[in-house]
Amino acid sequence: MSQTYGQDPAQVAVERDVTDRVVASFAGAASPRYREVMTSLVEHLHAFVRDVRLTEEEWTTAVEFLRGCGDTTTGTRQEFILLSDVLGVSMQTIAVNNPVGAEVPGDLTPTEATVFGPFFVDGTTEVPSGGDVTFGAKGTPCLVEGRVTDTFGRPVPGARLEVWEADEDGFYDVQLDGFDGPGSMAGRGHLFSTDDGSYAFWSVLPASYGIPDDGPVGDLLAAAGRSNYRPAHIHFMVTAPGMRRLVTHVFVAGDEHLATDAVFGVKDSLVLDFTEQPPGEAHGRHVDSPWVRTRFDIVLAPTTSGGDT
Amino acid sequence: MSQTYGQDPAQVAVERDVTDRVVASFAGAASPRYREVMTSLVEHLHAFVRDVRLTEEEWTTAVEFLRGCGDTTTGTRQEFILLSDVLGVSMQTIAVNNPVGAEVPGDLTPTEATVFGPFFVDGTTEVPSGGDVTFGAKGTPCLVEGRVTDTFGRPVPGARLEVWEADEDGFYDVQLDGFDGPGSMAGRGHLFSTDDGSYAFWSVLPASYGIPDDGPVGDLLAAAGRSNYRPAHIHFMVTAPGMRRLVTHVFVAGDEHLATDAVFGVKDSLVLDFTEQPPGEAHGRHVDSPWVRTRFDIVLAPTTSGGDT
Repeated sequence: MSQTYGQDPAQVAVERDVTDRVVASFAGAASPRYREVMTSLVEHLHAFVRDVRLTEEEWTTAVEFLRGCGDTTTGTRQEFILLSDVLGVSMQTIAVNNPVGAEVPGDLTPTEATVFGPFFVDGTTEVPSGGDVTFGAKGTPCLVEGRVTDTFGRPVPGARLEVWEADEDGFYDVQLDGFDGPGSMAGRGHLFSTDDGSYAFWSVLPASYGIPDDGPVGDLLAAAGRSNYRPAHIHFMVTAPGMRRLVTHVFVAGDEHLATDAVFGVKDSLVLDFTEQPPGEAHGRHVDSPWVRTRFDIVLAPTTSGGDT
Repeated sequence: MSQTYGQDPAQVAVERDVTDRVVASFAGAASPRYREVMTSLVEHLHAFVRDVRLTEEEWTTAVEFLRGCGDTTTGTRQEFILLSDVLGVSMQTIAVNNPVGAEVPGDLTPTEATVFGPFFVDGTTEVPSGGDVTFGAKGTPCLVEGRVTDTFGRPVPGARLEVWEADEDGFYDVQLDGFDGPGSMAGRGHLFSTDDGSYAFWSVLPASYGIPDDGPVGDLLAAAGRSNYRPAHIHFMVTAPGMRRLVTHVFVAGDEHLATDAVFGVKDSLVLDFTEQPPGEAHGRHVDSPWVRTRFDIVLAPTTSGGDT
């Protein structure tokens, strides 16, 4: 009904004046970057309100939605990250900070990045390359191995790999009853690549899972008619001196949720075959039951090719 | 440094693809309005991230800022309303819902609206027109009188006026130690206009005050080099059958903060003279000390002229 008001010159002037005054209020910011970011934020938020002719009732709903996100957030549950994730703001930020194409030197394409997610925990246990980060997480044994190189194919020794994942029931350690810090971490750990850039670790085959849907973000997904499921994956954060930090996952090929990831994190290059293996000897251990293995070679971009780290 | 990435065709395609996939995820929303609002929100949020080339560190800062707003919000402190207010999102929403110009019938211009603010409380005491809503609030006695009409100048009897304000120290009742609900409300109440549309109430002369600056919104204002002060004002919410709800303030002429209101709420038409009066008889009572009076005539628009109420 009210789109016409947006075209009445007097009304357009009133609306523009509000934005101009708010933008002007940031002119005195000490940091030019702060001024730039806030000016753009104000312009876009105001344009959103104008474009949809946001009602006062909708404004109230939005404010209460944000209050609800705050109420839902705890030490191990960050609803605002989930919100950013399901609105694709996280993936857009990752796209901006991990440029592709002509800007990156070398012959190899850097490994693609994806969402950080809300389940990373600092202070994990270090294991040697080839070690086991299961620590009691439930699931089929899974061996991940690969090599870390730069975009010229040269090995990157000493790269730190933080890995974390959900268990066969789709839960991270921090979501389990009784989780109380470092002593109960499971399905997560860190290791370093060896002199030739190679790495390996044992963990469990990850399962697909629903992101928490008992908070405002769950309500949003329901209103949108969207699934809250994420396809099975293992998180990686890889850092090395002179290299752009890589935050990514590997996904399990064949997962039914690959096309409808609730947080838009799937990229074809990150979908890997996890191949079933018979019981027996593997990578220095004997496995009594069927297990799976996958190979994930990692290419890091130099810090000079964009991004903030 | 990275604006160039936004122009590399491969990079532009990657960034656009993220937005397209998120927009598509709302295609199945049961409510067309929900789809419309969320599509616009996603487009604008993603454009913001792209335009400023938001770094991952800045994204983390934003997420932690929102967490902080949640942590700061209580039953009587709503940091997300303050955030909306200081970013002018509240005033933009008000501008959209209170159209001016050719869309409103009659000869009179509807009284301008302004921010609702975070200090409204439901369930106030009713006083008769001419009554007193001070209830112990500290300050110089202040008489506010006026008439409620429609845009043709016809009286609107039975209009409900909710009024609320800060005391001479700049504090609302809910901010004072010991506030515990209806029994300790002060400087707020409601009354109804009489048969000829007139109304009057006693309260106290409001004072300018700083909005709470001990939370994330205070940090934002500090980073922007902005004042957290609001010029002295009395809040009004006026409702009557068939009329658009009016949420507004009256401001005290001469206040030093009129040009730098932290929430952009000032409109020239809402700045009134509060004239000092000698002790004596006034509106059916004897006042021992100097007091002030002001006149605020209120023009309500019909509900048919836009807005959501």
